[in-house]
Formats: sequence, C-alpha cells, structure tokens
Amino acid sequence: MNNDTLLMTMLYDFFGDLLTEKQREYYDLYHNEDLSLSEIAERAGISRQGVYDIITRAEKSLLEMEQKTGVVRRWRETRDELERAEGIAGELVRSCDGRAESVDLAKQLVLLLRELKG
Amino acid sequence: MNNDTLLMTMLYDFFGDLLTEKQREYYDLYHNEDLSLSEIAERAGISRQGVYDIITRAEKSLLEMEQKTGVVRRWRETRDELERAEGIAGELVRSCDGRAESVDLAKQLVLLLRELKG
Repeated sequence: MNNDTLLMTMLYDFFGDLLTEKQREYYDLYHNEDLSLSEIAERAGISRQGVYDIITRAEKSLLEMEQKTGVVRRWRETRDELERAEGIAGELVRSCDGRAESVDLAKQLVLLLRELKG
Repeated sequence: MNNDTLLMTMLYDFFGDLLTEKQREYYDLYHNEDLSLSEIAERAGISRQGVYDIITRAEKSLLEMEQKTGVVRRWRETRDELERAEGIAGELVRSCDGRAESVDLAKQLVLLLRELKG
C-alpha cells in the first residue's frame, strides 16, 4: 500500500471518480473510513487478498494518472508560489506600516492568497 | 466537433496522455496541427468518417474526465482569484507611492501573480 498519504489524498480528490465503482468503494473504506482489509472483506463477502488487490490496483491507477497528467505536481508548484506570494504580501503589511489604505490592501492580499493555497 | 477551443486546449493539455494513442494522434493533427479530416484520413489510410469518429470519441472522453475531476473548472476558479490578487497588488504599487521598499515588494507581487496566472 502506498504510504505517501498526502499525495494519495490529493490524487483521490482529483481522480477518484475516474476509478471503477468497486475500486473507489474499497479505496474509500480503507483509506478514508479507516476500515481494515479484513473488515472490508467481511462486509463485501470476498477474500482479504481480493480486497487488497483491488485497492492496490486503484492506487496504481491513481499514480499512473498523476504520471500522465502531472495535476498534483502542478498544483504543488502553484501552491509553493502562492506561499512565496503570501510571504511578500506579509512583508508589505509591515513595510506599509502607518499608511492605512496600503496596509488594508496588503492584508486583503494575505487573506486571499492564504485561502487560495487551501 | 467541440468548439469551445480554450476549454478543449486545456483539457488536452491536462488529460491528453490519458487518451488512447490513436485518439491522441488524430486529435492532435486535427486540433493542433490544423489538418483537415480528409488529410488525416488519407495519411492514416482510413475513411474520413473513421477519423471523425475517433476524434469525436476523444473529445467526449476529455469532457467526461473534466466532468469527473473538475480540474479545468478548479484551475479557472484559481486563475480568477489570481487575477483579483494581481489587481490588488497593482493598487498597492500605486498606494505605496513614494516608499521605495514597499513599491518594490508590490511590483514583485504583481509579476509573480501574473506569471502564476499563466
């Protein structure tokens, strides 16, 4: 099972609906609902190995989609730049010290960029 | 054929590599290399209708991926917010008028946000 939790969470968020229904269901129970393989197997009436295979295939599929689209990589790059922009806006809040209008605008920017970063 | 060129360009950019090889090839010749259906048909040695069907299926596939992932919609929303942030940074350049350090920071921000918008 893939352990880069943050990457897998983002991949599932972007591409979960491109998985098959069964892959999505078991993946979700295991990774998001925190059920064990045995619990899912019992609930689904198939073997533990069967559940493991389906979840592993779902993970592989998500990782392939990332490899082909770079959606998460691109989003992470954008987020890094937003982080940098937020830092500059923060400096502006300080450097504009005393000019109410400018401080106000700079604070607006900090909030907007923070929100965009998600 | 789908005529929302900008949407289709973005979808192909994100999801092109998830299409089949043939879909990608004909789609690219038609939409990016600007060949006609007949020219592609002649080059590929299949009927014009065959080419049309493959390209139409590719477009449908790209639109379905967008429907399931919302990648382009999300990116457009982000870009709108970046546009708004760039506007605020532009106001800051003016409102900081006279304070070299602040103007400098604000100009850095404008450039960074403009680049992020792509």
